[in-house]
Amino acid sequence: MIARLNGQEIKVVKVQGEFPWHFHEKEDEFFLVWEGVFRVEFRDRIVELRPGEGLVVPHGVEHRTCADAEAWVMIFEPAEVLNTGNVTDANYTAPQGVVI
Amino acid sequence: MIARLNGQEIKVVKVQGEFPWHFHEKEDEFFLVWEGVFRVEFRDRIVELRPGEGLVVPHGVEHRTCADAEAWVMIFEPAEVLNTGNVTDANYTAPQGVVI
Repeated sequence: MIARLNGQEIKVVKVQGEFPWHFHEKEDEFFLVWEGVFRVEFRDRIVELRPGEGLVVPHGVEHRTCADAEAWVMIFEPAEVLNTGNVTDANYTAPQGVVI
Repeated sequence: MIARLNGQEIKVVKVQGEFPWHFHEKEDEFFLVWEGVFRVEFRDRIVELRPGEGLVVPHGVEHRTCADAEAWVMIFEPAEVLNTGNVTDANYTAPQGVVI
C-alpha cells in the first residue's frame, strides 16, 4: 500500500503468473498497468492491458489476473479488501495493511 | 472522468498554469503524474512531482496545483467533489460528471 484516502487504498504490485479465480462481494477494483502486459480474465472474455491502460472490475464479478512476464500494476480499491476476495489461498492471499 | 467505483471517481486532466488556492472540506485527493512536471503547492512547502510520482492531499489542507508546461495527471477522489473545493472560480471550476 502506498497511500490511503477516503477509506480507499492505493497499492502497487509486481505480479507474474496466474491468480486464483475470485470475486469481491462489495468492492469494485481498478487496475492500472504501469509496466508489462497484464490480463484480467473474466469467465466470458479476456482483457489484455498494457502500460497506461486500466480497467474496473465491478463487485460481484468473478475474475482472475494473469501476467506471463513480470508486470507492475497499481490497484485502487477499498481499504481492508482481501486480495483473493471470496476465497482464501495459502499462496495468494496477501497480508493486509502492508505499507511502503 | 474515466472510471467510477466505490463512490470514487478517476479523472485524467491535462493542466498548464496555476490553479486557485483552495481546500476540500471532506475529500482527500490523490494526484498521480503521467507526463510532465506537476507541482502541488502548500502554504508552507512545494512538492514537485514527475511521471510515476504521486501525492495525497488530505481534506482540509489548503493547496494549489501548478504546471509550467502541459502535464498529464490522474486524480482519484470522491465522486461529485468540486475541483476548486471551497471556492468557485469562473475560469477554473469544472463541470462535474463529464465522462470520457
